[in-house]
This record gives sequence, structure tokens and C-alpha cells, in this order.
Amino acid sequence: MPRYALKIEYDGGPFAGWQAQADQPSVQGALEAALARLDAGFAAGARVAAAGRTDAGVHATGQVAHADLEKDWDPFRLSEALNWHLKPAPVAVLAAAQVPQDFHARFSATGRRYTFRLISRRAPVTHERGRVWQVLQPLDLEAIRAGAAHLVGLHDFTTFRSTMCQAKSPVKSLDEIRIEALEVPHGMEYRFHLSARSFLHNQVRSIVGTLERVGAGAWPPARVAEALAARSRAACGPVCPPQGLYLTEAVYPSDPFGD
Amino acid sequence: MPRYALKIEYDGGPFAGWQAQADQPSVQGALEAALARLDAGFAAGARVAAAGRTDAGVHATGQVAHADLEKDWDPFRLSEALNWHLKPAPVAVLAAAQVPQDFHARFSATGRRYTFRLISRRAPVTHERGRVWQVLQPLDLEAIRAGAAHLVGLHDFTTFRSTMCQAKSPVKSLDEIRIEALEVPHGMEYRFHLSARSFLHNQVRSIVGTLERVGAGAWPPARVAEALAARSRAACGPVCPPQGLYLTEAVYPSDPFGD
Repeated sequence: MPRYALKIEYDGGPFAGWQAQADQPSVQGALEAALARLDAGFAAGARVAAAGRTDAGVHATGQVAHADLEKDWDPFRLSEALNWHLKPAPVAVLAAAQVPQDFHARFSATGRRYTFRLISRRAPVTHERGRVWQVLQPLDLEAIRAGAAHLVGLHDFTTFRSTMCQAKSPVKSLDEIRIEALEVPHGMEYRFHLSARSFLHNQVRSIVGTLERVGAGAWPPARVAEALAARSRAACGPVCPPQGLYLTEAVYPSDPFGD
Repeated sequence: MPRYALKIEYDGGPFAGWQAQADQPSVQGALEAALARLDAGFAAGARVAAAGRTDAGVHATGQVAHADLEKDWDPFRLSEALNWHLKPAPVAVLAAAQVPQDFHARFSATGRRYTFRLISRRAPVTHERGRVWQVLQPLDLEAIRAGAAHLVGLHDFTTFRSTMCQAKSPVKSLDEIRIEALEVPHGMEYRFHLSARSFLHNQVRSIVGTLERVGAGAWPPARVAEALAARSRAACGPVCPPQGLYLTEAVYPSDPFGD
């Protein structure tokens, strides 16, 4: 059976997360339902695997999943057919590619990138509602960057993972936290770009929620280092809400989409 | 009675347009309902006036309205109170300012700016749904710009206005059409920035719909000049949908918001 990799974009708002769950709408469920319209294996219950199992409300611009199909498909026609059957769900297949049998969307990935969008302004957001986290107070970008610098590198991230996290080890290498500041009308948007081989459950939201406290002046930047060293979930700042979070990229040794 | 100017942002999706209408949700109605919570005059039926009466589904990032209130308000407190009462409607007051009695949001405005967002890509848009017009085919930016150049300046825009347009004269000066091209994942976004003292009804959507035909190769750029010269609504290209259109600015001889 030929294997296909799919690059997927979605608005996480209406979904209980990526992962298929009984009686709850999921992105995986929407994709598998579309696949079931064109493939007997999926009609009989075949499943896809994905690079990142995003939580409820979390978005993606570059999720990657793979699927084994019963017949050969031209990749462009496959993406067009899936987009047709996905309507009206806010899920789109951006690209499809045939991949070797040993390609696995989750296990072959050597990196993940997430972006978190945080808007600071007084007036409620209207156009970006559900796609950003809004705070009312101004934030100190240099303080946020100073706090973030403590987190880059190989660390025990126990403080910054959910108590529900199922990863075997809390030790992870966080390769980059780059923080972009953009002027928006009557406010500022901060985009946190995080890159790692893999992330712990709630790691990005725990980090951004903590760094927001630093930006607001409630935490000195050095307290981020102390929180990390504490290796205790109780030392974490507030976990921020999911609607600002985007899975933007899954990295593979050889890009299946060739772009 | 002190007069206040309000700078307003809204998502036009849920509204039948700016203008208050019986039994239909309108942005004006939402704003007046919020004003009625803090001012006896509005509770008794006072009305606001606005720089641009946007159609159903059209958005704003810089609409301006004025209101006469019974008491003096600190402008910041006024905007905060209005935003409180506007919730959960996707309408926000970005700024408020006390203005002279002879300031009129509509009649004092010496210019309006609109932006139209058009995305060209195969996969359906997800995050930007309802905020852009999507077409599937690639567009030729240079052809669009060549077509647009025919429209800049003082012209009889009969071809490019709705037959419902109530303006006395179809002769208007279009000061600028600037077209920005931005790469978006697996596609392109074109932003049409139009500037004029005032616009005719459906003028921007008639122009963008026509220029899209040029970009798609269905119309040679010179046909835009012929359509304009025809001074006939029948010569217009298809009017594009409202959800890509944003009123971004109302220009006054002296900026009431001082920024």
C-alpha cells in the first residue's frame, strides 16, 4: 500500500484537539472521515498518524500526517479530493506527497516548530478573536527575552510540563525561543517562535504563560531560571490559553514535500 | 453636550452592515446599545454618525463615528466603558476623543481608505475564513497593476458603482490603488489599498472583482480602460464578495485621535 504524507492546516477552535476521541469532534476524525470517502481501508477504520497531537483549541499551519492508501494517487489530486470532502470543516490539506514505507509522521520527525501569538492592547480583539491570546497590560520585550534565554538548551523541564504529560523523560533540548514584536493598531503583538526535537505536554503554553508574567513585570527574568531549577510544576507561571498556539512545522531529515 | 469621536474596529461577519436596520443586527445598533447603557440621550434614542456606511459582511479597522453625550467623559474611560458593554459583539472602540461641535464623522472627513484582501491558493483558507476573498487560480500581479493604473484619477465611475448607489454624481477622484503582494503558505495574498475623498456604493468591490479578472488572464488590462470609458454598469467585471473588504481609515483635516 502506498504511503502518503499530508501537510495540514487547521483552525483548532471547533475541535477537542488533534486526536480522535469518541463523541467529540477532532481534526484526526475529520481527516479520517474525508479519507474514508476515497479509500476502502479508511472506510474500514484505518488511522492516520501525526507529527504533533495538538490540544483542544490549538491551531496548525504545518501539521504533518501520514496515511496508507489502497491505490496510487496523484498527490495533487489526493489533496484536492480531501479538501473537497473536508468541507466545511476548517481543515485544509496544503500538500500531499508519496513517501517511503519507513516514513512515519511522528517517529521520523526530527524537529517541531510552534508559534504562539500574544496581543497586548486595551480594546478587545475582533478580527483575531480565537486566534490569539490577548492581555490588557503592556509588556516589556527585553525582559521577556531575558527570561526566555534561561530556557534555551538542554534542561529538565519538569516545571514546564503538564502533570498529565506521558513523555518518559522531562529532559529536552529547547533549540530556540525567538520573540518577534509587531505593531498592531493600538497595541503590540508578540510572536514566540519555539523550536525543539520534540515538546512536552503543555510545554509551550507553560513557557509563554510564565514569560508573560515576566513581560508584565510581575516576575523578574531571573525567576524563570529559578523556576526551571526547581523542577517542580508548582514553580511554573500560569499556563496560557490554547487559542494563540500554532504548530507551524514538522521537520524531517528529507522534506517529503520538497519545498 | 460634549461631542466625542470614536475609532472603531469590527468584524462585519455577523452584521447586516454598519447602518441600523429594523430587526437586523448592525454595527451601529451594537454601538448605540452600548452608548444607551451609559448615556440618557442614547437610552432615549440618540444616534451616531459614521465616516463610512459599510455593507453587510464588510469589516473595519478604522471606522470613525461621533456621538453627543450628556456628560463629560474622560476619553479613555469612555472607550473602556463602551468596550465593556459591547461584549461579546466583535466590535471594539480603539480610541475616543472629545471633538469640537462642528466635527462630523461623515461630513468632516476629507478621505477614506479601504483595503481588500484577496488570497489565491488551491487549499481552502481556514484561519482567514470570513476575512478574505479566496480564488483558486494564480494571478498576474503586473497585469493587475496595469489594469488598476487606468482607474487612478478623476473619472466617471458609473461602470464601477452599484445601480443602487445614491451619490449625486458618479464622478470621483480615485487617489491611489496600491497593490501589495505577500507570500502566504502555499499561496499568495494580494492587498488592494484604495484611497479617495469618498467612494461610490460597491466601488471597491466592483474594482477588485474586475481586476481579479485581469489577474486571472480573462481580461487584458486595457479592457479596464474600455469598461471605465463605457460608463455602463454592464461593462463592469463581477462584483467580488464583501468579506475581504476593510474600512481602514477616515481622514480629517485635524486627526481627532492625535496619532
